[in-house]
Amino acid sequence: MEFMHTTLGQRVLFGTGLAAEHVAAELDRLGATRPMVIAAPPERALAETATAGTDAVLWWDQVIQHVPVETAQAARVAAADHDVDAIVCVGGGSTTGLAKAIALTTGIPVIAVPTTYAGSEATDVWGLTEDRTKITGADARVLPVAVVYDAELSASLPAGLSVASGLNGLAHCVDSLWAPKADPINQAMALEGARALNLALRGIVADPDDLQAREQALYGCYLAAVAFASAGSGLHHKICHVLGGTFDLPHAQTHATVLPYVLALNAPAVPELAVRLATALGKPPVAPEHDAVASLHGLPAAGGQDPAEAAVEALRRLYTAVEAPSRLADYGFTASGIPEAVERVLAAAPASNPVPVVEANITGLITDALTGAAPAPATATLLAR
Amino acid sequence: MEFMHTTLGQRVLFGTGLAAEHVAAELDRLGATRPMVIAAPPERALAETATAGTDAVLWWDQVIQHVPVETAQAARVAAADHDVDAIVCVGGGSTTGLAKAIALTTGIPVIAVPTTYAGSEATDVWGLTEDRTKITGADARVLPVAVVYDAELSASLPAGLSVASGLNGLAHCVDSLWAPKADPINQAMALEGARALNLALRGIVADPDDLQAREQALYGCYLAAVAFASAGSGLHHKICHVLGGTFDLPHAQTHATVLPYVLALNAPAVPELAVRLATALGKPPVAPEHDAVASLHGLPAAGGQDPAEAAVEALRRLYTAVEAPSRLADYGFTASGIPEAVERVLAAAPASNPVPVVEANITGLITDALTGAAPAPATATLLAR
Repeated sequence: MEFMHTTLGQRVLFGTGLAAEHVAAELDRLGATRPMVIAAPPERALAETATAGTDAVLWWDQVIQHVPVETAQAARVAAADHDVDAIVCVGGGSTTGLAKAIALTTGIPVIAVPTTYAGSEATDVWGLTEDRTKITGADARVLPVAVVYDAELSASLPAGLSVASGLNGLAHCVDSLWAPKADPINQAMALEGARALNLALRGIVADPDDLQAREQALYGCYLAAVAFASAGSGLHHKICHVLGGTFDLPHAQTHATVLPYVLALNAPAVPELAVRLATALGKPPVAPEHDAVASLHGLPAAGGQDPAEAAVEALRRLYTAVEAPSRLADYGFTASGIPEAVERVLAAAPASNPVPVVEANITGLITDALTGAAPAPATATLLAR
Repeated sequence: MEFMHTTLGQRVLFGTGLAAEHVAAELDRLGATRPMVIAAPPERALAETATAGTDAVLWWDQVIQHVPVETAQAARVAAADHDVDAIVCVGGGSTTGLAKAIALTTGIPVIAVPTTYAGSEATDVWGLTEDRTKITGADARVLPVAVVYDAELSASLPAGLSVASGLNGLAHCVDSLWAPKADPINQAMALEGARALNLALRGIVADPDDLQAREQALYGCYLAAVAFASAGSGLHHKICHVLGGTFDLPHAQTHATVLPYVLALNAPAVPELAVRLATALGKPPVAPEHDAVASLHGLPAAGGQDPAEAAVEALRRLYTAVEAPSRLADYGFTASGIPEAVERVLAAAPASNPVPVVEANITGLITDALTGAAPAPATATLLAR
């Protein structure tokens, strides 16, 4: 057990229908009297709900994806002009991103009110785009001091989008288990996130108006972001980065499709984590006692329930329940792209991966993901030998 | 799901044999060049190991339990006289407590190097004693900025003391599940702590020189402190506070003895947490599939494995393995003390407790703990009705 873990200090407030109350309380706690509210036009109404009773000195609605430097600079100037002493950002990743860009140079504290499952609010990572180039960094000043989660604000997110976004959060959780800076603490957070997301996504699919399920989704994606920010990008994210960047495949669908195959590859090498993941996903492996009891009575063992298979099986059940994407072929990827994809993945694969990453197993993985073949731990692991 | 959770920002470094390297790296990160080392005489050698290669401008060895104000004041003056810019404290709770007392008024950052499982290093709680009265508080300035855990520094802690201290940590974990400010995040940390402590204590009993087990103990007690500091004192701690304060029973043994009975009382009211605790303790309840399979083959169901019984059984197995204390009668408590103890517990019991706390069930609980009767979830719960 050798690791360094930095826990980021932050206050999170969960409460359905309580956003305005919580935002006001946090502004009060900061002693802030001149808040700026950032919300893109589509989130204007949600932002008014979340800041009811709060007098903002400035409303800012120019929110652009990837935070162009010019937008950030304009918002910083406006904040200074208005003597802003706190920022309340209501929206998704781009909105939080703009608030962070202001905080980066001004130190103005941010209260984030997420309306999606993006997770940016739980990290100290910022990003800006200049001349079509994205620059990113980590800085303690951009971490929101408080995050206010209110399931009513994400209630209008369509079920399909919620599932896609939630599976993206689940990918953060699973990939955190073996990412370069994985440690027992971020693994525990990741597994708790997976537990919540399993409940959340099944619940949202069963009833998109289930606010308890949406609470679990916000909670699970929050933990996913905490774990991922701490652990870094593992093999799964490297593969998806190649597929998205080089082959222009859609982000959410690519992540959802690839995840089970990465799990099938790695799970046999981390059996203890596989047991815990299967348990978090609601399908713990059949206990050894079961086989012992069965054997006493001359019955066959439960059979095949090794940890890796249990984990893959648990994820498969969730995927079936939420009708998750399952084949890259559905998103424009073809077999002709496999060699280049494999080459790029091999170049990017993290040394931390618990199973050696070689041409054979990555070719097998991407080929299976292309066609939606059933993920098979044994096969995947054999190919690594 | 309605809660506020404050995560304290802190850096933890785990590494057996790496204390000196980690302390030097953290001083460097702080830009500190004039560190003060606090270590009581018995820990002097450990402190020299932990700060090898670091030039301290001041060594301080006057460490007194409960941190008398006079000691704190003398240490603060010495720190100021020596232009100290960082404190490295090596020892148990009293040593960390003195470092916190200095930080409280000076803001000098603390790097804690725990040699016991006290857990104070993971909290922002300070305590001082003046005129035989202990005053406590919480302040962000006293939270150590970094904690350096090195199992070699706790290797000389005798197995019996390690188990007692580890069971105290486990009590923090279990009681956190239903404490006044319990929330999903500190519950997840508490369950992870319980998982680690179950492995740790069994390992230390099997082989006191097992450094991996001692790593797990440090890790588990760290999480126990994080969870407990966030969740507050639940029923278990209120009962132990009464037994310790009014009847002068020994701290560690009282905590260890009482815990299974509080679990037996509360577990039936929190079945989902009971399942997770049983799983964390290495004995997940027999899955429903087991009974289904058994039934298909005309076998009896696994029987009795309701979540509460599974949790109590899992704890009992750990207790047996580590030969934990089991009867208050062994520590001087007698039946004549029960009525007063019950009265005081009823007055102190937290409203958050998942089972109503009434005279009948607390009388039953303390009576069982007195004689070491087997903890029984069903009986305990019935008594609440």
